[in-house]
Amino acid sequence: MVSKNQIKLISSLHQKKQRSANQLFFAEGVKVIQELLQSNFELEHLYTTSNDFESVQASKRTVINEQELKKISALSTPNSCLAVFKIPADNPVIESGLILALDDIRDPGNLGTIMRLCDWFGIKQIICSKETVDIYNPKVVQATMGSITRVNVNYIDLKAFLNKTKLPVFGTFMDGENIYKSNLPQDAVIIMGNEGSGISAEIEKMITARLTIPRFGDLQKTESLNVASATAIVLSEFKRNS
Amino acid sequence: MVSKNQIKLISSLHQKKQRSANQLFFAEGVKVIQELLQSNFELEHLYTTSNDFESVQASKRTVINEQELKKISALSTPNSCLAVFKIPADNPVIESGLILALDDIRDPGNLGTIMRLCDWFGIKQIICSKETVDIYNPKVVQATMGSITRVNVNYIDLKAFLNKTKLPVFGTFMDGENIYKSNLPQDAVIIMGNEGSGISAEIEKMITARLTIPRFGDLQKTESLNVASATAIVLSEFKRNS
Repeated sequence: MVSKNQIKLISSLHQKKQRSANQLFFAEGVKVIQELLQSNFELEHLYTTSNDFESVQASKRTVINEQELKKISALSTPNSCLAVFKIPADNPVIESGLILALDDIRDPGNLGTIMRLCDWFGIKQIICSKETVDIYNPKVVQATMGSITRVNVNYIDLKAFLNKTKLPVFGTFMDGENIYKSNLPQDAVIIMGNEGSGISAEIEKMITARLTIPRFGDLQKTESLNVASATAIVLSEFKRNS
Repeated sequence: MVSKNQIKLISSLHQKKQRSANQLFFAEGVKVIQELLQSNFELEHLYTTSNDFESVQASKRTVINEQELKKISALSTPNSCLAVFKIPADNPVIESGLILALDDIRDPGNLGTIMRLCDWFGIKQIICSKETVDIYNPKVVQATMGSITRVNVNYIDLKAFLNKTKLPVFGTFMDGENIYKSNLPQDAVIIMGNEGSGISAEIEKMITARLTIPRFGDLQKTESLNVASATAIVLSEFKRNS
């Protein structure tokens, strides 16, 4: 059984402020929870409707019923389990290889998809502006499908970082160089901008190489690519000849 | 003011069965509605909270308040307008150029993102298995951002189509030929599979060229790309040298 206090705590973890205050977040679903358990993430408590996860010590595992799960879940159709984990301490930024920098990505599904893409393409480091959606947001954790355990994410002052870095800084714009014909290095920062407004003016000034993804559709009408789609194409281009 | 019968009708259009029965669907938001109005879609009725859309004839335009909009909207945070359109008659399948075939894509956001990608890359034709989510689902219409007006979509018996077509049929698998090193034609069918189970066994038999998107991350763990991300990369590869 799940106590009123536990329900209250887990419900509070839907909010970033409470996740920060408690240094806790939660994940749902067997696959994501298993990946977190097998990684360096430290389990606080597991709630499950079945007898799975037998390797988890009894004091950290509570079998609950479906009504109870519904009360604590962030999903409209709850899975069979929910686990609360400690938020790990920040690792330092890995300043080599390809670094993906996110300038105010607001949609949790987009951030989760972008983390899966980084995982696929072997990108080890994401840096996010402080306005970017929190990676421990339950919808982000869900959308990462476990890749949250394999990509290092830091929330930093992007402008200060770009001011200091010696790496070239790439961004995609409508008027950049054709990405299909560009020589792309294997050590670089790649900036992806906000869903509605793109890369902010302040960050744009710090870009050393402007790229464009050519458009083949109706040039008058086709407006833009979704930021996760654009990230897929950009990362594929950086890696395809590596 | 919006009448009880109008609310009932619009609410019923959340369901595919009712959209088919009435041959109507609805769209929300100024941008999407404007694109539909400027295309061949025929307006049934427009509901708006402001005095915009003045070019729409008065008999087809009702100014409503925010409470009324909330009652008919499919969005948790309604926009300023909602418009009901007639579902147009099917056009024949354009059997030339690149055709994207969707084998049971179930997530509305994925289908909308894939339509935007087709629009960007100038792909004029999508064919969907009958189990693929309906393009007139309100969440799909929203996610297409207007590209629904520029891509021809048909729901057909994929197996029968692939049996007859003379075009080469491409699909992505874990064990295919490296897509980055393949010679990709400009007339072909490209199959994208279901979110969970990939391309179905029945359709897989009809594929004439197996491709793979190389993985650069941890080969033991990174599991898969989201289907919209995979579509972005595949379409980019087919078009980049065209």
